[in-house]
Amino acid sequence: MKSTTDPKLRSFIEVSPDSHFPIQNLPYGAFRKKSGGAARLGIAIGDYVLDLSVLEEKGFFDKALNGDSFFSGEIYLNKFMNAGRAAWTAVRETVSYLLNESTADLRDNSELRDTALIPMSQIEMTIPVDIRDYTDFYSSRYHATNVGTMFRDPNNALLPNWLWVPVGYHGRASSVVISGTPIHRPNGQTRPDDNAPPVFGPCRLLDFELEMGFFIGPGNDLGKPIRLADAEDHIFGKVLVNDWSARDIQKWEYQPLGPFLSKNFATTISPWIVTLDALAPFSCDGPVQEDPAPLPYLDSGKNRSYDIHLEVHLQSENMEKATRICQSNFKYMYWNIRQQLTHHSISGCNISPGDMMASGTISGPTPDSYGSMLELTWRGSKPLTIAPEETRKFILDNDTVILTGWCQGDGYRVGFGEASGKILPAREVL
Amino acid sequence: MKSTTDPKLRSFIEVSPDSHFPIQNLPYGAFRKKSGGAARLGIAIGDYVLDLSVLEEKGFFDKALNGDSFFSGEIYLNKFMNAGRAAWTAVRETVSYLLNESTADLRDNSELRDTALIPMSQIEMTIPVDIRDYTDFYSSRYHATNVGTMFRDPNNALLPNWLWVPVGYHGRASSVVISGTPIHRPNGQTRPDDNAPPVFGPCRLLDFELEMGFFIGPGNDLGKPIRLADAEDHIFGKVLVNDWSARDIQKWEYQPLGPFLSKNFATTISPWIVTLDALAPFSCDGPVQEDPAPLPYLDSGKNRSYDIHLEVHLQSENMEKATRICQSNFKYMYWNIRQQLTHHSISGCNISPGDMMASGTISGPTPDSYGSMLELTWRGSKPLTIAPEETRKFILDNDTVILTGWCQGDGYRVGFGEASGKILPAREVL
Repeated sequence: MKSTTDPKLRSFIEVSPDSHFPIQNLPYGAFRKKSGGAARLGIAIGDYVLDLSVLEEKGFFDKALNGDSFFSGEIYLNKFMNAGRAAWTAVRETVSYLLNESTADLRDNSELRDTALIPMSQIEMTIPVDIRDYTDFYSSRYHATNVGTMFRDPNNALLPNWLWVPVGYHGRASSVVISGTPIHRPNGQTRPDDNAPPVFGPCRLLDFELEMGFFIGPGNDLGKPIRLADAEDHIFGKVLVNDWSARDIQKWEYQPLGPFLSKNFATTISPWIVTLDALAPFSCDGPVQEDPAPLPYLDSGKNRSYDIHLEVHLQSENMEKATRICQSNFKYMYWNIRQQLTHHSISGCNISPGDMMASGTISGPTPDSYGSMLELTWRGSKPLTIAPEETRKFILDNDTVILTGWCQGDGYRVGFGEASGKILPAREVL
Repeated sequence: MKSTTDPKLRSFIEVSPDSHFPIQNLPYGAFRKKSGGAARLGIAIGDYVLDLSVLEEKGFFDKALNGDSFFSGEIYLNKFMNAGRAAWTAVRETVSYLLNESTADLRDNSELRDTALIPMSQIEMTIPVDIRDYTDFYSSRYHATNVGTMFRDPNNALLPNWLWVPVGYHGRASSVVISGTPIHRPNGQTRPDDNAPPVFGPCRLLDFELEMGFFIGPGNDLGKPIRLADAEDHIFGKVLVNDWSARDIQKWEYQPLGPFLSKNFATTISPWIVTLDALAPFSCDGPVQEDPAPLPYLDSGKNRSYDIHLEVHLQSENMEKATRICQSNFKYMYWNIRQQLTHHSISGCNISPGDMMASGTISGPTPDSYGSMLELTWRGSKPLTIAPEETRKFILDNDTVILTGWCQGDGYRVGFGEASGKILPAREVL
């Protein structure tokens, strides 16, 4: 069978060159028809969604999946994610075949096309995974250095463990929401004056963090770590992640056990999960890990990453169009996803289908590539101009933050769509 | 109807005065018959388990639950926990009535007794809740002071936020295991010599932490916090928690985002969930919160806690019997469970049925009431004698740590059973 990532592949569905969803991508998501009904699982192709439950019910996956059912009646991808790489690749190959411009099965069956292919204008996306545990890493050296420079010591910006340990912490799974979900500005305790008691009220220093996350397929048993060489077989695919952060709450609460309420009010993800199969052609070198070399359990020789162009756009109520405020790239991450996963399980921690692991803020080397307002405005000291008469130090009420990203191929893009969220004013809570 | 906590109540099932499960308790759990079959939900009474699915199928809860089904075919309590306090109290009243010595329905129906009441010797307990998010607090002032004294500054042992913020962090839900599950000593990175690179290998400073956890029933929507006055309606009941901790891994990894692999290899809970209804007679004052008074969203006037006697026992392979190494009490906790829950949600974080929240290490004022080896041996400087020729600084391979606890009534105990775990040697991981 022809490679599913061949740049020459074309679908009978028209896909513009700047679409994120050509036949080379085939990302998974969950959607609901605006006309009603339960959520269903699908694959994006151009401006359409291919309903996987329709294909499954018609028997198109019988051969690929040996009669197992993963889509019909399911509102989450967890069951399919747990099926493992062989099943993922088999479904991808079947869908690639069916959508190919030279294949008649779907192209020439108007009844099937009408039920299986739904215009995106007729659907809304729903959260595609029943997210179990959520972990957030801190793997951009540029980001960790910026934060260390601002808050600790410019001469010793990186903590001593950072180049040895893929630092991470457990996050809050319940408040991970799908792109488009509005977020109320959180309330919380802050201490604006070190010589006065803390105060309670709306966060004043609200921030985004540009991150990417990956979803776990098959897990491991408690006490049996995942080896680096096997890590990819446990990773289903990737999404964009906005790790909303309340900087003033974080500053007051985080010692000694880490961020808590400053992060758990919401985390926004993009709706389409792009598989490692689709990303494979965009594999590239990550930062050199030689000084120091990772400990053996984290050392695979070369640091392999992905070349994924990332952008953040900001739009206020007064603006007709969002302004780009950051351009970064996933390849800037020092620790790669295999190292993150292996490290996470090396204690014996059991990883489960539906777990999400995020990268940490993806900041690059230049000031316009910093992945948070904290860094872009250097703690608010250099406000950003986002429109002729608008500046921002942090995120204000009714601002919308939009993350987007794609891999650029020759004449096509393998993209992630958007992770967008609008900040609503804080609620009265007492 | 008679109060279900009346000390004079007696069951037709014989219950010894030091049993943890008299008719005043009626805790919920999940069990599997050793002879086989799926897990089922039950209530402990003396040395028996009452099978709730049998009672439900026979219609005994029809009136209490308006025909809703919460037990039959369920292996977790989540659905029942989500039903709310009215359902919890109704089932409790029905079961209290059926088990009462003066009630004939179950007592005199030998066929029903034989199917509904199973000797504990014929079952094994399974995890009773599909645990969603897990949060661990840090709410003993004695514990926080001890840790601050050892690792930071004896003169400023409590960090500035501690008396204002119920400090907590997100934990790992997947590795919460039921009492009796053996735990392999975790591997990880540590840095025993500050002037040399870190090393990888088995944890050398393995510890327990004596904690209690509570389970969430009905949750809240994202963005809509739970008020302090309503918090109890969201709390189903409590268990014992051993928050196993790898101190040397923790020391190297925890800056700046908190504990990660040092905690996520395992957390052991006791199998029976004791409800707030059963604990109500043992309500007592907690520590005075006046200097400072909590901010209004955390201030209910008086600090109400529970008088729950707690013990930790340690047994090595060479010992015939475990030795008690700690006696503490839940009432020592500075922040109460209502404050913890309200604080957790005040950012807008959505809490869900099946979430677990743990107290943090429950240390008391005296050295024999410290809830961890770290404190009991003061970082290993004062080894504990656990048998004539055995001492411990931390937990060794093949040691078993047993947490237990109960409320002492007049002639009866409302108890939690045990949270027990044996440490097995580290596995080879590479």
